[in-house]
Amino acid sequence: MTHTEPLAGIHLILGGARSGKSRFAENLITQAGQAGGGTYIATGRAWDAEMTNRIDLHKQTRGDLWHTIEEPLDLCAALHACNQPGAQPVLVDCLTLWLTNLMLEDRDIEAEFDHLCDLVPTLDIPVVFVSNEVGFGIVPENAMARAFRDHAGRLHQRMAELAGRVTLVVAGIPMQVK
Amino acid sequence: MTHTEPLAGIHLILGGARSGKSRFAENLITQAGQAGGGTYIATGRAWDAEMTNRIDLHKQTRGDLWHTIEEPLDLCAALHACNQPGAQPVLVDCLTLWLTNLMLEDRDIEAEFDHLCDLVPTLDIPVVFVSNEVGFGIVPENAMARAFRDHAGRLHQRMAELAGRVTLVVAGIPMQVK
Amino acid sequence: MTHTEPLAGIHLILGGARSGKSRFAENLITQAGQAGGGTYIATGRAWDAEMTNRIDLHKQTRGDLWHTIEEPLDLCAALHACNQPGAQPVLVDCLTLWLTNLMLEDRDIEAEFDHLCDLVPTLDIPVVFVSNEVGFGIVPENAMARAFRDHAGRLHQRMAELAGRVTLVVAGIPMQVK
Repeated sequence: MTHTEPLAGIHLILGGARSGKSRFAENLITQAGQAGGGTYIATGRAWDAEMTNRIDLHKQTRGDLWHTIEEPLDLCAALHACNQPGAQPVLVDCLTLWLTNLMLEDRDIEAEFDHLCDLVPTLDIPVVFVSNEVGFGIVPENAMARAFRDHAGRLHQRMAELAGRVTLVVAGIPMQVK
Repeated sequence: MTHTEPLAGIHLILGGARSGKSRFAENLITQAGQAGGGTYIATGRAWDAEMTNRIDLHKQTRGDLWHTIEEPLDLCAALHACNQPGAQPVLVDCLTLWLTNLMLEDRDIEAEFDHLCDLVPTLDIPVVFVSNEVGFGIVPENAMARAFRDHAGRLHQRMAELAGRVTLVVAGIPMQVK
Repeated sequence: MTHTEPLAGIHLILGGARSGKSRFAENLITQAGQAGGGTYIATGRAWDAEMTNRIDLHKQTRGDLWHTIEEPLDLCAALHACNQPGAQPVLVDCLTLWLTNLMLEDRDIEAEFDHLCDLVPTLDIPVVFVSNEVGFGIVPENAMARAFRDHAGRLHQRMAELAGRVTLVVAGIPMQVK
């Protein structure tokens, strides 16, 4: 999981559940950051004990060099605020939790995607976006789940087009997609 | 998503939901076809509004250079009819919708697969087959869904063996499998 | 699916349902084994007719050169017993069925994983581990299924770190991950 090239531009990291995608993304930034850290934009909401544990575990794993911003909905505002000259690289973890929150709040998904995809090319700092690849299973019986994976798939296509690098993490190992 | 080699033989394109696999397949044919188009064999049935919208959207995206054949069941007959000297390349979209229709009509799945896999090596025109990769999730609780993904997996293995090229599309980006 | 390098060390083979991962693993060993066979550690339990048929079909496909050990739970003991100087290569098929059995028997999953991951680096014989990649779908509604895919994902990361080679099988075709 070493990565010797300097971190630059936009990197989209896709992976399955428990694929090690967040850890890979953190390592990318730790190895590239001057101070070994970065800004972590956490989109997940601790709506139950399972999620709280997961978030706490992630925080412990990252350590003290990271600055954490919890932003479940206004991802663009958070990214915009981070976009300062010489600022630390940013890790957004993750797009699918952000999408979950947008859907639960009944936001206009396409408008939110447009906003993000307009913002991304204007960013001057390296940003690593992590997202769950959720489209390789059977069509879900639940209509909300079907809508979710359709939205996620479309967002991944748009973000992959904007990203300089796209990686699929399988069992903790990166496979280069782009 | 550019593809500079001339289109030839059989190409199997797998991808998840909303992975951009159809668009990638269409671009393959558009870039290779002399007239920039091809014959589109649509296996999907518009059984509800969601599906009707999806099919209409696909048609609008393809444009006028394409000749569309809607054939939910007799895929082999449709392919056989297209197999004329100098004919346009064919895009079959998709094998998993065809399989869905076969199962709903209680057809003999293995016999249908045998028929297709006997026909494919005899085709003289380039054919691009699109199909959903559906086997990377949790075992479905629904027995029909389990049977579906088993059939799909077996068909993909057989088609991949016959195909000269196999591509996995991830977030709109092709990963070469074979 | 030819593999000309001599079989050595630990090889983790991931794939979806009906992806041809077991057949690929068997071919790896058949082509490398001096006698063309190996020891097959089957972790699957024939708890219903569907599973019995699947296991029988696998046995018929492998043929007579294979020695089969059925071990649903004590995988480490079975591996330890196989680890003799000059012994045949071993195929473990599969880790996800082993995990299923551990969960059904209410075993301490982390302790079992620790035990396996401590044992693996001490093995002197080539071992091919097959496992289902199950993390690329929608979050399952069933809590047990969620726990299962979390455990599977963590095990795959640990095993991939220990393995010299990791392969993702897609439609019967190997994609090299590591």
